[in-house]
Amino acid sequence: MPRLWNETIEAHRRDVRDAILDRTSALVAEHGLRSVTMSQIAEQAGIGRATLYKYFPDVETILLAWHERQITAHLGQLARVRDQAGGPDTRLHAVLEAYAHITQRSRGHGDGALMAHLHRDEQVARAQRQLHDMIRDVLAEGVRSGVFRDDVAPDELATYCLHAVSAAGELPSEVAARRLVKVILTGLLR
Amino acid sequence: MPRLWNETIEAHRRDVRDAILDRTSALVAEHGLRSVTMSQIAEQAGIGRATLYKYFPDVETILLAWHERQITAHLGQLARVRDQAGGPDTRLHAVLEAYAHITQRSRGHGDGALMAHLHRDEQVARAQRQLHDMIRDVLAEGVRSGVFRDDVAPDELATYCLHAVSAAGELPSEVAARRLVKVILTGLLR
Repeated sequence: MPRLWNETIEAHRRDVRDAILDRTSALVAEHGLRSVTMSQIAEQAGIGRATLYKYFPDVETILLAWHERQITAHLGQLARVRDQAGGPDTRLHAVLEAYAHITQRSRGHGDGALMAHLHRDEQVARAQRQLHDMIRDVLAEGVRSGVFRDDVAPDELATYCLHAVSAAGELPSEVAARRLVKVILTGLLR
Repeated sequence: MPRLWNETIEAHRRDVRDAILDRTSALVAEHGLRSVTMSQIAEQAGIGRATLYKYFPDVETILLAWHERQITAHLGQLARVRDQAGGPDTRLHAVLEAYAHITQRSRGHGDGALMAHLHRDEQVARAQRQLHDMIRDVLAEGVRSGVFRDDVAPDELATYCLHAVSAAGELPSEVAARRLVKVILTGLLR
């Protein structure tokens, strides 16, 4: 019984935390980082201000937590895409396409200053390294099976992939992003 | 006679300005942006403080002017590389390789905060657009002559090139940067 009770409390805390992150990101997207207050967030999340302060000390910390949740979700999504059936080329294609779409969608989240602020964070550098290693491993597998070029190390090819895919943020449509991934793949095939 | 005199004054002013920019960039590279003073710059450039203030109001303005001079020099260099003999594929290869090396060398100029500060400037966005258009035009020429793929617009391919080449900033050597450019080119060839 106490175990269940604890789990219920845990689940409740997670729900409140998620609601806070969701509402804050919506408020910031609508009004900008500078004009959002803790009172507004509490009101939108349907909790009291005192409760909100038990979870987070300020708006900035909430945004960093929201961004961390986004990054974790995106890495999880990319890992699931990687784990689908098919050869290394099919899987790399799928991972790069998924990442291109994440890049395009993320472009809209908040203003440039906010993005720059969030992206100074160490967690972004860590996620980039994880993604780099994920892509490098798929590339290495494809080099071994003979589908990818072997005259350049998988580590360097992964750096190429990540930078090239970031071009998706400047492309006007999902279709254009798919064309981009096709071009990137052409550079890798044997 | 007055014309010559004016030209001499003009040339002298350019020399002093160049000396100020050179000394400032050397001082900032050595000591960091925050610790460099106008007095140090005047001393290193061999001029009085009063003279320095006739040219620039503060260290930040000097650095922006230095950066603008760098950008102009780099664009000029890339245009000369583009104008060399050879077909569009040879020329694009040369431009991308030159730009990759500029990217690698620039990585060292000052700390990350300084770089971020300088790169917020509108002149960088303008230079990126100019470079994008330069690459797009070489690509379009190569599409017409049949060496580059024609299933993706030259404009999108140029965006791909610029982002992919930025990977050079993370690569360990000039040789690695050359391998990168080879991979990028493979993605473009017909």
